[in-house]
Amino acid sequence: MSKRKPLKMTKSGRDSPMRPRPGGPIWLFGAHAVLAALANPRRKCHRLLLTPEAEQRHGDRLRPLLGGGQPAPEKVKREQIEPFLTTDAVHQGLALLAEPLDQPDLADILADVAARPQTPAAGTRLLILALDQVTDPHNVGAIMRSAAAFGVTAVVAPGRHAAPETGTLAKAASGALEIVPYVGVTNLVRALDEMKQAGFWSLGLAGEADRTLADADPGGPLVLVLGAEGPGLRRLTREHCDLIARLPTRPPIESLNVSNAAAVALYALMTG
Amino acid sequence: MSKRKPLKMTKSGRDSPMRPRPGGPIWLFGAHAVLAALANPRRKCHRLLLTPEAEQRHGDRLRPLLGGGQPAPEKVKREQIEPFLTTDAVHQGLALLAEPLDQPDLADILADVAARPQTPAAGTRLLILALDQVTDPHNVGAIMRSAAAFGVTAVVAPGRHAAPETGTLAKAASGALEIVPYVGVTNLVRALDEMKQAGFWSLGLAGEADRTLADADPGGPLVLVLGAEGPGLRRLTREHCDLIARLPTRPPIESLNVSNAAAVALYALMTG
Repeated sequence: MSKRKPLKMTKSGRDSPMRPRPGGPIWLFGAHAVLAALANPRRKCHRLLLTPEAEQRHGDRLRPLLGGGQPAPEKVKREQIEPFLTTDAVHQGLALLAEPLDQPDLADILADVAARPQTPAAGTRLLILALDQVTDPHNVGAIMRSAAAFGVTAVVAPGRHAAPETGTLAKAASGALEIVPYVGVTNLVRALDEMKQAGFWSLGLAGEADRTLADADPGGPLVLVLGAEGPGLRRLTREHCDLIARLPTRPPIESLNVSNAAAVALYALMTG
Repeated sequence: MSKRKPLKMTKSGRDSPMRPRPGGPIWLFGAHAVLAALANPRRKCHRLLLTPEAEQRHGDRLRPLLGGGQPAPEKVKREQIEPFLTTDAVHQGLALLAEPLDQPDLADILADVAARPQTPAAGTRLLILALDQVTDPHNVGAIMRSAAAFGVTAVVAPGRHAAPETGTLAKAASGALEIVPYVGVTNLVRALDEMKQAGFWSLGLAGEADRTLADADPGGPLVLVLGAEGPGLRRLTREHCDLIARLPTRPPIESLNVSNAAAVALYALMTG
């Protein structure tokens, strides 16, 4: 840990949290998100703000991650962190100014998949999650967390209708943003076609489907397609799915929260 | 629909949303939450605010629910609803001032359970969800929604460490608050003992457990106990569980969001 030094309000630090510039640095916050970002060699970090309480609580996990080009921690009071973050951000005394991750293209993911052994090891099913206009950062973050927990290969979302990488998304992802590629595509329908050509089945989750997910699962590499709550899958997206299935929920509840639906579906597909 | 009439800012209406009095009326908002509350004969409703857009969109589902003692809708502009609600409440043009539900006691639930057939019908497993200090209303609401979707008998939480019934919780529950009893208990450990005496196994979810939920499930009536994210189950709670199990997630992600964990566990227990 470096000695306490004055906290400089640099322009990049002050500008980024509330009005992130596209491609500009973002403030990550919360223990899991910040520690995972510092541990990720692909994550370029600029500033680390840390309260004494957070240093005491997380110092043992933090110290091995520092050095090696990471910024020296700036020790601050709780109230010195808050101006950098959105209102009500639960920062737990840690904030990290970092560049958004340089995410792979879908073509990179599919080339990587093609290079893997034809017969995957047990528990390593190829599964890609495609999000059709799921934009709430809390939901997308929780989905990233479940995707990492269940070993998903990548999460794909159409760039113009997706949640951008922000501190709120990263906090909800609880470190998973450093693990699972979050891949932007220009056109989700074209991306589904590319994944199908690469040997993936595409399965859309829709409450009105006849078959349950467990019954409909064809096995093998799969793209699971989730729509936004309310509107569900867009018509064109749905038409480009090979299969449509529902979770075995009972009326009158029509659907689960979208991140809960994702978690249940991933569990069912990965352990079924 | 009644004719447009002036919107009266009654004292109860103005006071309740931001600083709910214990036991006093609350503002529910959002289409699913409001429609489900109006359809619930046990829910006493005082005022219904409705925008023209919401009337157009939800009128067909709304009209059959009115009359019979329900308040006549007051047609309002969007901005006239907002002062009654918390900031950023996604109200979808509907708000309903209503009494909190009169929830049963645990003893009522267990008496009802005891009166059921010994051999339940397929797909009707007796399952109670116990929340140990899960207090975020978005999470508790999403958990209620999954509990209703998977046919849970009741959700139990210790009164002093639980999320109270609010508009935010009801919105996240998406109507499920009208379906699944949300039962406050004074002492969770004593409640677990009472449920065990009524023939329920108690199973706590804990990331450090050796066995997965699917392996540990003893079958039959079960209380699934979930702790808050971070601290997890409290020591005394954990010691009063018959079994401890984990979800089959992979490192380095240590856990799922608590509502996602609840959804996955309920799916696994109800369909496994």
